[in-house]
Amino acid sequence: MTTPDFHDQALGARAAAISVATATRATKDAALHAMADALLANELSILVANQEDVERARAAGTSEAIIDRLSLDSSRLAAMAEGLRDLARLADPVGEVTRGWQLPNGVHIDQVRVPLGVVGIIYEARPNVTADAAGICLKSGNACLLRGSSSAVSSNRAIVQALKAGLDKVGVDARAVNLIEGGHEITDVMMAARGLVDVLIPRGGASLIEAVVRGSQVPVLETGTGNCHLYVDSSADQDMACSIMLNAKVQRPSVCNALETLVVNADIAGAFLPTAVDVLVKAGVTVHGDDRAKAIDSRIVDVVDEEWDSEFLSLDIRVAIVDNLDKAIDFIRAHSSGHSETIITNDAAHQKRFIAEVDAAAVLVNASSRFVDGGQFGFGAEIGISTQKLHARGPMALPEMTTTKYVITGDGQIR
Amino acid sequence: MTTPDFHDQALGARAAAISVATATRATKDAALHAMADALLANELSILVANQEDVERARAAGTSEAIIDRLSLDSSRLAAMAEGLRDLARLADPVGEVTRGWQLPNGVHIDQVRVPLGVVGIIYEARPNVTADAAGICLKSGNACLLRGSSSAVSSNRAIVQALKAGLDKVGVDARAVNLIEGGHEITDVMMAARGLVDVLIPRGGASLIEAVVRGSQVPVLETGTGNCHLYVDSSADQDMACSIMLNAKVQRPSVCNALETLVVNADIAGAFLPTAVDVLVKAGVTVHGDDRAKAIDSRIVDVVDEEWDSEFLSLDIRVAIVDNLDKAIDFIRAHSSGHSETIITNDAAHQKRFIAEVDAAAVLVNASSRFVDGGQFGFGAEIGISTQKLHARGPMALPEMTTTKYVITGDGQIR
Repeated sequence: MTTPDFHDQALGARAAAISVATATRATKDAALHAMADALLANELSILVANQEDVERARAAGTSEAIIDRLSLDSSRLAAMAEGLRDLARLADPVGEVTRGWQLPNGVHIDQVRVPLGVVGIIYEARPNVTADAAGICLKSGNACLLRGSSSAVSSNRAIVQALKAGLDKVGVDARAVNLIEGGHEITDVMMAARGLVDVLIPRGGASLIEAVVRGSQVPVLETGTGNCHLYVDSSADQDMACSIMLNAKVQRPSVCNALETLVVNADIAGAFLPTAVDVLVKAGVTVHGDDRAKAIDSRIVDVVDEEWDSEFLSLDIRVAIVDNLDKAIDFIRAHSSGHSETIITNDAAHQKRFIAEVDAAAVLVNASSRFVDGGQFGFGAEIGISTQKLHARGPMALPEMTTTKYVITGDGQIR
Repeated sequence: MTTPDFHDQALGARAAAISVATATRATKDAALHAMADALLANELSILVANQEDVERARAAGTSEAIIDRLSLDSSRLAAMAEGLRDLARLADPVGEVTRGWQLPNGVHIDQVRVPLGVVGIIYEARPNVTADAAGICLKSGNACLLRGSSSAVSSNRAIVQALKAGLDKVGVDARAVNLIEGGHEITDVMMAARGLVDVLIPRGGASLIEAVVRGSQVPVLETGTGNCHLYVDSSADQDMACSIMLNAKVQRPSVCNALETLVVNADIAGAFLPTAVDVLVKAGVTVHGDDRAKAIDSRIVDVVDEEWDSEFLSLDIRVAIVDNLDKAIDFIRAHSSGHSETIITNDAAHQKRFIAEVDAAAVLVNASSRFVDGGQFGFGAEIGISTQKLHARGPMALPEMTTTKYVITGDGQIR
């Protein structure tokens, strides 16, 4: 199989982007259903291709956790197809008039949502992202260049072939969906493709995101890592604090909105911490902590300095003791990755200060950070969670995959 | 005078950003008036400093056009002060709830506008931008790092000193406004200051913008150049086309929303072009054109190929003849900088297609592109016109100087 030329694919995507940008919702929804149908119709070839990837990964000594992320079966494929049908049920963001007004001279101005154009997505092992990202891009009127992991290349080829067949079936330009193959250098080519690619979205671990953010000349929509804190204030309902802490830490530890660091007010640390450690240890969590925390509970083990800034993404948690709200806010400012930060408190003034002074995509009061998620928010689709400040911050869904255009109509007005 | 250390200034700005982010509108408006008062109170020292810059520029053989942009006098200084007072009259974008909803489990979510943080602005000769940018940043709750042209350094020092005195007077942290001095290398330091600077905004010519967009690791809000086209359709009201063309070209030729290229439908070129050239030549405009245009009117001079992609910013215009709307859209797609593109037509289907298929920050029907401006839009303030697709597209005003934060409140909800 010869690798398609990136430049040809990008030009094809630009041409397709013009037609999908103006496609009606009915056309796009029909295409999403056709893509879902094609995934199911090609189940055998997709699963055979996936088996190749899995065997290659096993031969290379890949960990079982990663092999699990890579593996497809009938039910996972059905879920991918259902994901595309779910997208068909969502409102079309394109064409929404976000503002409109008339100038004194009668000139009318509308600000209208339009697609971004050609979106490049650089992602890691999970092949389900391929269908998911292609569907989100199509529904938002964008063409996409999908740069999946080389470890999933056989699966991705089979999936994209099916998706393109689905597009063909309903007469949508199949160049709207493209798999970008090739070695590591192709990522550099994508990052340099200013003018050809409108936006790049890295989805994956911290090092992938950092490399794209630093290296790209194409504008980047950054999906961020989550070094999330939970501050237990002196006025907290301690049972609630324990329950939210446990949920945020263990309900799904490998994701970005999971809890990494517990920050406890010194006034209640003596009462709260032993109960909290009980609950955590029972759930299989290793508790690391600073010297003050260790002095309160001997089950707490060391934390090395640099660990305060990273994600565990595992059944580990860190505990820091602080003297008051100011110190808690300072501590979170120093270590937060700007994703989701929580306070447990019954003090209204403390709620207000935490909300105002902590700089993150989401600040939570008395609720689990696990709610910071496009699905939980009710968005129905999510391309990632942005921790950057420009364009989109927090869960990114269909509207975040668009830009706007001012449409100005007059009858001869001049300045 | 010793140059302050950039790192110290940036850290000071980050500290000040926390307090200005949560300052009330009343405090910020009082600060804007105090800044305006301080500019007027320091008129003498500012004008003396400006005289130094002007003399240095003259000695260096700078063109009179640039010296005019650099020069201040009492009335220009009064206009700068008035600009700050105008900002005090505008609504505060910070705290606006842009969306809000409740989850089925009772968790409440608000999306709230918050400041970006520390904004770096890199700009060229005009010293009035110093006060203007400082005011826009303060009103939107941001601290700023102002990197003006070295040719205006004496003026900028005197202006920033006055602005800081104004902030001091009302008890706002004066580290919210900073002049960044030093050689060319300091721009590189700013572009690398990821984590210290939240956003960089280049304001100036195409080469400055391109250098910042390509070189920056800090996210960039790009203010773009305008290679603006006007397409005269076969169904156009030709008198209206002439009037809008003239206004867009000559009312202020040096700005980004001025007209650069006239695209004329071949069916009406024989009738329209001689009149259009009459009007243009009378207004002192040199008309360049392709071979088909030159064959119609002998007053049209050559255009060299690469000129189709650049801005004249002068009393020059290019004319291209195209066979139909498709060719006009293709032509504009090939040469547009994505700023403002206009069609003159009475054909509703052509209006609709032009609006949908031309990819620009603003598309205009039967109106002058000179309206694409924050002031004309009624925004009351403008930091520049974005031709990029992320975050902001078109005139950028106070809301575009903010990001959002999700504020999530519950009473113990977990997943």
